Amino acid sequence: MAVSDLLWRYAVKRFDPNRTIDSETWSRIEQSLVVTPSSFGLQPWKFFVIHSPEMKAKLSAISWNQSQPSDCSHMVAMAAMHTVSEEYVDRFIQSACKARNSPPESMEGYRRVILGFLKQKQGQHLSWATNQVYIALGQLMSTAASLKVDTCPMEGIVASEYDKLLGLENTEYHVVVGCALGYRHADDKYAQAPKVRFDPNEIIQYI
Amino acid sequence: MAVSDLLWRYAVKRFDPNRTIDSETWSRIEQSLVVTPSSFGLQPWKFFVIHSPEMKAKLSAISWNQSQPSDCSHMVAMAAMHTVSEEYVDRFIQSACKARNSPPESMEGYRRVILGFLKQKQGQHLSWATNQVYIALGQLMSTAASLKVDTCPMEGIVASEYDKLLGLENTEYHVVVGCALGYRHADDKYAQAPKVRFDPNEIIQYI
Repeated sequence: MAVSDLLWRYAVKRFDPNRTIDSETWSRIEQSLVVTPSSFGLQPWKFFVIHSPEMKAKLSAISWNQSQPSDCSHMVAMAAMHTVSEEYVDRFIQSACKARNSPPESMEGYRRVILGFLKQKQGQHLSWATNQVYIALGQLMSTAASLKVDTCPMEGIVASEYDKLLGLENTEYHVVVGCALGYRHADDKYAQAPKVRFDPNEIIQYI
Repeated sequence: MAVSDLLWRYAVKRFDPNRTIDSETWSRIEQSLVVTPSSFGLQPWKFFVIHSPEMKAKLSAISWNQSQPSDCSHMVAMAAMHTVSEEYVDRFIQSACKARNSPPESMEGYRRVILGFLKQKQGQHLSWATNQVYIALGQLMSTAASLKVDTCPMEGIVASEYDKLLGLENTEYHVVVGCALGYRHADDKYAQAPKVRFDPNEIIQYI
């Protein structure tokens, strides 16, 4: 990835509603979500990709009437796990044993470490899982930029209404942030606005 | 960025202590930290890049004796803001006016929106800022991978001891996560282990 891609990226205010991400490009973006790193590799998330125009319009209504969800090509609602159960960990361990062709005994130590960690974090799984979701958000935006796909990260959504619409009420998953993907509208004046960042010396210290 | 870079990436267990990231490559990685997107563009973070062998060795001791901080080339300790003050917002607005050559009045509306948001989030700034730091972590790891630089994200650190060592006690910033960067050791067997991920159908739902 060229740094120029990261400089090209900005938070799109106005998407071109007539442009759609093609399926080959989308499959690469999907792949970036799938392989996102997470603590212990637990992937405590679900990603909802909303492509249907009717549903996207409904999302704008529960996103403070911002136009990005309806005008973008693919809207991703990112959900984090509320409680990571022992059953979930066992399912993860099974998937690891399968991928690595190892017997369950070989991962028993790792399983215990994970369960110990989760016990210690009891009541705070959601904020820990939310952190992991934001890794996915960061990787999603940089991957999209490298493919010249525009994005807009969206915290300004009514997450509880997203949960309702996506059928997540009373489930283990809750929407915590969104990301709209597509192509900038030719008239989006923010595309030309210089990036606002503190001087590197103010935020990076070398030791 | 090619998806193959993201597949190449893994959480390095053992870095080659004899390999250093050259300054041109590092400057690109630094740039990715600087331009990381954040909520409102507020950049509620500081990044400490530890390159000195003595300091890196000290970090391993406060990272459950894991070898990554001492053996990697550059260890980044990522700190989030505890409380985002009105003064900080004003400093951000000033930097925006300067970058965009606009008068302060033109950004007064934006300033008020930010202050309203922060007031509503009172007492929760750190978790909000931590989310933003994890965007930086995601972008850092994907940028590094695209430059064939290895990483290991590290939540297994004693953050309060990092704060102490970096002089962050009683400041507005607190270390929340680390990331070691460098080059994998030829003998790190985890480099060959197949990636463990749930089936895309289990974590991505299309609507």
